Amino acid sequence: MSRPDTGRAWQPPSAPAGATDPGGEADRLARAALSAAAEPGDVRIAMLVRELGAGPFLQRLRTDDYEAAVLKDLAPRIEALDPARDLELADRLGVRFVVPGDLEWPSQLDDLWEAGQLYDRGCPPIGLWVRGPVRLDELADAVAVVGSRSATAYGVDAALDIGAGLGRAGVPVVSGLAFGIDQGGHRGAMAAGGVTVAVMACGVDRCYPAGHRPLFDHIVQRGAIVSEVPLGTAPMRMRFLARNRLIAALGRGTVVVEAAIRSGALNTANWTERLHRVLMAVPGPITQEQAQGVHELIRSGAASLVSRAEEVLELVGASGAHLLEERRAPVRTDDRLNPRERQVLDAVPKRTPAGAESISRTAGMNVLDVESGLIRLRDLGLVAGSPDRGWRLTAPSDRGTGASTSSLGR
Amino acid sequence: MSRPDTGRAWQPPSAPAGATDPGGEADRLARAALSAAAEPGDVRIAMLVRELGAGPFLQRLRTDDYEAAVLKDLAPRIEALDPARDLELADRLGVRFVVPGDLEWPSQLDDLWEAGQLYDRGCPPIGLWVRGPVRLDELADAVAVVGSRSATAYGVDAALDIGAGLGRAGVPVVSGLAFGIDQGGHRGAMAAGGVTVAVMACGVDRCYPAGHRPLFDHIVQRGAIVSEVPLGTAPMRMRFLARNRLIAALGRGTVVVEAAIRSGALNTANWTERLHRVLMAVPGPITQEQAQGVHELIRSGAASLVSRAEEVLELVGASGAHLLEERRAPVRTDDRLNPRERQVLDAVPKRTPAGAESISRTAGMNVLDVESGLIRLRDLGLVAGSPDRGWRLTAPSDRGTGASTSSLGR
Repeated sequence: MSRPDTGRAWQPPSAPAGATDPGGEADRLARAALSAAAEPGDVRIAMLVRELGAGPFLQRLRTDDYEAAVLKDLAPRIEALDPARDLELADRLGVRFVVPGDLEWPSQLDDLWEAGQLYDRGCPPIGLWVRGPVRLDELADAVAVVGSRSATAYGVDAALDIGAGLGRAGVPVVSGLAFGIDQGGHRGAMAAGGVTVAVMACGVDRCYPAGHRPLFDHIVQRGAIVSEVPLGTAPMRMRFLARNRLIAALGRGTVVVEAAIRSGALNTANWTERLHRVLMAVPGPITQEQAQGVHELIRSGAASLVSRAEEVLELVGASGAHLLEERRAPVRTDDRLNPRERQVLDAVPKRTPAGAESISRTAGMNVLDVESGLIRLRDLGLVAGSPDRGWRLTAPSDRGTGASTSSLGR
Repeated sequence: MSRPDTGRAWQPPSAPAGATDPGGEADRLARAALSAAAEPGDVRIAMLVRELGAGPFLQRLRTDDYEAAVLKDLAPRIEALDPARDLELADRLGVRFVVPGDLEWPSQLDDLWEAGQLYDRGCPPIGLWVRGPVRLDELADAVAVVGSRSATAYGVDAALDIGAGLGRAGVPVVSGLAFGIDQGGHRGAMAAGGVTVAVMACGVDRCYPAGHRPLFDHIVQRGAIVSEVPLGTAPMRMRFLARNRLIAALGRGTVVVEAAIRSGALNTANWTERLHRVLMAVPGPITQEQAQGVHELIRSGAASLVSRAEEVLELVGASGAHLLEERRAPVRTDDRLNPRERQVLDAVPKRTPAGAESISRTAGMNVLDVESGLIRLRDLGLVAGSPDRGWRLTAPSDRGTGASTSSLGR
């Protein structure tokens, strides 16, 4: 991380701190330093912080002989650290640094310990820099909406719809502020008056991409911008990958809206699976490149197909979500027929009335059953006629709601 | 079935026949009579034929007191039967009547006994009227392609593509000759020089729908038109439902291309499931009504998502099918990097060269590892420079296939 050198090197406290005081000031300061020195998701560092405490670990960085590889990696940055200044600057900008032990700490991120491997960012962040009124401990029911930056209008519409449906249901929408699907998810949630949170690969003082400034400002006012790297940090490719694990880990599930075969959204999908969160995917035209990755997720069984927010809510078991009604066409009068009655109906002529005997031959059914079937069909308004004059179908427009129309055709 | 009365009622042979001679002439004649008297898929009748034999059962129809409900249902038609005439007429038109015991009988249809219930058409046909050169015993590897009549251009294209892919692979395509998806499946197979078979709800002398006459004629010449009702029989709603079970049962699986929530194709899908055949579905835009039924099939886990014929072939395990290669983007040079090398690459400046120390700080990695990483990246052509002059990225266009370009930038 290229950071301006302030001339004075910060010295960690001489006594071990933070190990016994998680969320205390010394621990917060040490974590702010480490969040500047370490690359996001370095499991080796996260493990040492967990074992030693943030303060003692920082102290080893300064006093030990740097023989461990992890220590050597931090060495180039350690001289330039100034976490007190970082925290002060953050405070001035209305940015808070949330660490484990804080009430606001989203403890679901601890699941990341079980989801990854060394070198693979399988660890919670050391701390999170947060800007905006939404608290991180209110995101346990959140759902991530992610997908291609080069999205189609179809995909963006789907992200908007699902974001809005989640927003209406009170489910926060997490995404990455990118072009395309991400912004669709954010905007949908906001349009519905819901909560949305953007997890960044750069410091929360930077709007990346710059073209999303109005969206960024809106989320700062009404949601939360979150990052594990300090103010002033530039986005780098590795940090996007690290950021994806947080998007997957913050909520209960991830909806992938569009993703070509080599989309970063598939990385988020992968984290979702490894975290045993609910992975969902919105299908699209098979001819569209942006649908290929999504279809592969569904095909392989990794993701459940969803086409509406209601289906998402059902799958994540969101509290307050209505159980999903199956999509059904409206019930028609002839849905109420049993197979034998339907068979009679099929055999009744459209125009010229026919007798029960003839209908019986056409239907392949005995005359007695045909006659009782015809009476029932007449009561439902589906046929008109009588035993004397013969039977014919009523016009479909006369059938109405299936109420008795037995006076018809008598 | 309204059939012209020829004036002479056919008499079944007085001695039980057919029970001991399946596929023999007496059995064939009795089955031709029953295929005219019975509605397709009447399990009660199919069971009596299985228990008694076709000939003895017919005899009971004439001599018994008709007390059983099943017998009563056939009574209205029994007087008009003339199976010898039906078979003769069929023969003149080049139509054969294939019955169990024939070499051509597709024995996979017997699975229908296990797949249904009484009143639900869970039975094989009594016999099949067939027109065209393709033999029914060659359809064990077939795949059904079905879907909406009111299909979109997207859906028809998908049916054409999948039909053609199956045709090229030597897999027969079964469908129902309907408008929309059905005709797409048939046409795709034919265009690829493959085999296609249409199962009809009416007699095989009738082209239904009439607008598909050229397609019908082509299938008569090169494939097969199949029905369980005799020549001259009209299509009726119940017969379409009966026909669907044959489409599902003839091959190894069914691909549903488009289907709204109340599509007949979902009936075929249901039969496919009950038959433990492979059910597949092609996704589409979530905004399209015709995709809703399909998405529901995938969502519920009933169907596997497929977007190409290769995926269909893999799922049905078609003989001769190549194992499906996973869709992958072409391998790029930086795919070969390990995470640490990638981290170095991310920290190398685009234009103004930087020294290893500076890159080390940016990457958050010790200088020794950064230096060895830079050498490796230079060997891959991804960075240019030297320890003395500093390092920068090569232009993406120079990176080519990742062959060594270590002379660059020295």
